[in-house]
Amino acid sequence: MNKNKIYNIAIVGLGNIGSYLFKFLNKNRNYLSNKNNAGFRIIYVSAKNKKKKRNLKITKKQWIGNYIDVFKKKDVDIIIELIGGAEGPAKKLVFGALKNKKHVITANKALISKYGDQLSKIAEINKVNLEFEAAVCGGVPIIRSIKEGLIGNKINRICGIFNGTSNYVLSSMDLNKSSFKDTITKAKALGYAESNPSSDINGDDVASKVKILSSLCFNSFINENIHVEGIKDIKEEDIVNANKLGYKIKLMGFSEIFGNKIFQRVHPTLVKKTSYIAGVDGVLNAVIINGKPIGKNIIQGEGAGPSATTSALVSDISSVLRGNIKFPFAISNSKRKKYSSGKIIDLFFSSYIRLDVKDKYGVLSDVTKIFSNNKVSIKRVLQSPYKNKKRSSIVIITHRSKDNYIQKTLKTLAKKSYIIQKPKLIRIENG
Amino acid sequence: MNKNKIYNIAIVGLGNIGSYLFKFLNKNRNYLSNKNNAGFRIIYVSAKNKKKKRNLKITKKQWIGNYIDVFKKKDVDIIIELIGGAEGPAKKLVFGALKNKKHVITANKALISKYGDQLSKIAEINKVNLEFEAAVCGGVPIIRSIKEGLIGNKINRICGIFNGTSNYVLSSMDLNKSSFKDTITKAKALGYAESNPSSDINGDDVASKVKILSSLCFNSFINENIHVEGIKDIKEEDIVNANKLGYKIKLMGFSEIFGNKIFQRVHPTLVKKTSYIAGVDGVLNAVIINGKPIGKNIIQGEGAGPSATTSALVSDISSVLRGNIKFPFAISNSKRKKYSSGKIIDLFFSSYIRLDVKDKYGVLSDVTKIFSNNKVSIKRVLQSPYKNKKRSSIVIITHRSKDNYIQKTLKTLAKKSYIIQKPKLIRIENG
Repeated sequence: MNKNKIYNIAIVGLGNIGSYLFKFLNKNRNYLSNKNNAGFRIIYVSAKNKKKKRNLKITKKQWIGNYIDVFKKKDVDIIIELIGGAEGPAKKLVFGALKNKKHVITANKALISKYGDQLSKIAEINKVNLEFEAAVCGGVPIIRSIKEGLIGNKINRICGIFNGTSNYVLSSMDLNKSSFKDTITKAKALGYAESNPSSDINGDDVASKVKILSSLCFNSFINENIHVEGIKDIKEEDIVNANKLGYKIKLMGFSEIFGNKIFQRVHPTLVKKTSYIAGVDGVLNAVIINGKPIGKNIIQGEGAGPSATTSALVSDISSVLRGNIKFPFAISNSKRKKYSSGKIIDLFFSSYIRLDVKDKYGVLSDVTKIFSNNKVSIKRVLQSPYKNKKRSSIVIITHRSKDNYIQKTLKTLAKKSYIIQKPKLIRIENG
Repeated sequence: MNKNKIYNIAIVGLGNIGSYLFKFLNKNRNYLSNKNNAGFRIIYVSAKNKKKKRNLKITKKQWIGNYIDVFKKKDVDIIIELIGGAEGPAKKLVFGALKNKKHVITANKALISKYGDQLSKIAEINKVNLEFEAAVCGGVPIIRSIKEGLIGNKINRICGIFNGTSNYVLSSMDLNKSSFKDTITKAKALGYAESNPSSDINGDDVASKVKILSSLCFNSFINENIHVEGIKDIKEEDIVNANKLGYKIKLMGFSEIFGNKIFQRVHPTLVKKTSYIAGVDGVLNAVIINGKPIGKNIIQGEGAGPSATTSALVSDISSVLRGNIKFPFAISNSKRKKYSSGKIIDLFFSSYIRLDVKDKYGVLSDVTKIFSNNKVSIKRVLQSPYKNKKRSSIVIITHRSKDNYIQKTLKTLAKKSYIIQKPKLIRIENG
């Protein structure tokens, strides 16, 4: 404990989160100092546009015009990076700060998932903290739980719902039986989706989180190989079909170890209606960890927004205040492992496949033959004609098959003249 | 970080948990030393019966005949107390250890909920750790999450399923439509209940955990006032009725702050079938925290058994190894608050009430009049005759009423000649 030590904090970036944090720290200074047995003050702040109205009490002395100057200041102990983005100012700031032996706290998943290995090396050599609880699942204290609460466990799998926007969209499509397009428009209006939500929707945001969690769980370097599918091709009819079959659709991230290989993937997933994960709706995030000796552990909470992110940032600040310097990725860089990567085509899934076909004689027979030729065995078929009578939808649930065989089946099918649009595949969890 | 420091550990108590931990630490020494950047060895062990067959490789030098000698040894850094019980040897050991400036790790909820305030004072003065993650909900890293991951939050409510045995019994009664008595017998045979499961069944075990969690969440001293009801009076018919009405029955613990008072309670609770908590079955534990700015957070996992408890003990050991000395109750004793206690009779619930009545004219009319006289408004009535035609069961779901009024209603009813046995009350959560 660093009794009576006062830490000087600089906040760089004053968007929604930075502004909320600034107010929160000022308001709760006593409370947090008591809990951590060490004091702090916000000595500097910096942001792009000084003139922007922020309703924050920033003194002239606190304001730093050029963010680069922040890490050059001798009297800064902790720099909180809330700029965002893997490149540009955020990257310059965090590298510069660690090189100048400043503790760094960041909510930047893009940066950490890309440069985390390099950054953690510098932090370790310079004996400063690099903390990023806020980069993964906002208020869910997942990183601290992996690094501390579950430290004794050999984790072999982590999965869950890691993106609030896409989960809101899927839950909302299900609840209101609305289209993807309409739901996104509504989500933007309600503030649940950014004006450009592409990284939330296309799976990239989840992929960053999966990479970070993987390396923490498996004591490995960040692994770039990851299969990523987003949710933009999920149709209302997929949601309706899923319900009929007893499932919900969720965008999930997975990382698993099989035979000394790491398999990382992000894709829409059918989960049983009665399962825990099916009930995680709206903007919530949930993380499921499997390990030994713990068995299965679940942590759930709000995944984004200024309040949840501030909870995470404050836990990181507190960790520094308590003088608790830890390896950024749970173990020394010299002990981190390099695993080879497995490919999704080698995994086995029960799958949901939707085919839009011309409604003519012999189609189903041909379709089932193609499945059988590709060693994919069919568990269930649901055929329903569209109102427009010339088309029909065939939904097939397969038995557990190698993903490779499923993909080959779909490739063969795609070439057939009776297929109207690209076959849709959604993998089933615990199918 | 305490690079190259080797901590000497003594384990006292070698039952299921102690034995599992002994093997686990020996097997994972390198792994844990790497993660914590500090080494350890098990220098001593002590247990009641030396001759008992344990299948552990204990050297002559390691064995200490009298547990009292353990904390007198100069070369011990960490003492792990796995004896159990609030008094006797466990109490002597933990007090003696802290007074002798040894770090203490314990899984003993009875001891901590009773003597935690005194113990934490000694630990703080002597600058040693007193860690008890394993005392509450086994493998669920709830204490570390409150103290670290959620440190920035003002928590106003914590509740959940904190006892695996009682949860197994209730889930099992529901699944198999079996009686309490038969289910307990089966649970003992399967190892899910101890030969004397009374503290699990009567709510005392949950009460200890609620008291510990309360003081951590609210930065308060341990509060002895708690309303406790167990599950032994839950009948098969209550489970059947609950299902009919769309509920499940769970033994839950609650601690909440209203108007500067702490309300602690443990009782069977009706929860909506569709709620998260209704799906937490078997021996699982789940903790729900409400706070600001975090909103709602859930942590779930295995609550008991050697493997889950070892996960918690190892996280405590790691915390000591990292030199991370923290206040045992999250804040200095000098800053802990004394709240006054609220009483359950002042809280408001929607309630389930089951009356066994003589099946005669005018009973329902008299019953409803008594409810109305006591200002309790009825939401739903379910009356069904028993096969034995002279009796009938009346189930009443009330609107939200002051618990005091409900209890007065039941007292008045209990005196009526048409009431065959004591009216049964089960409170409804989020009714």
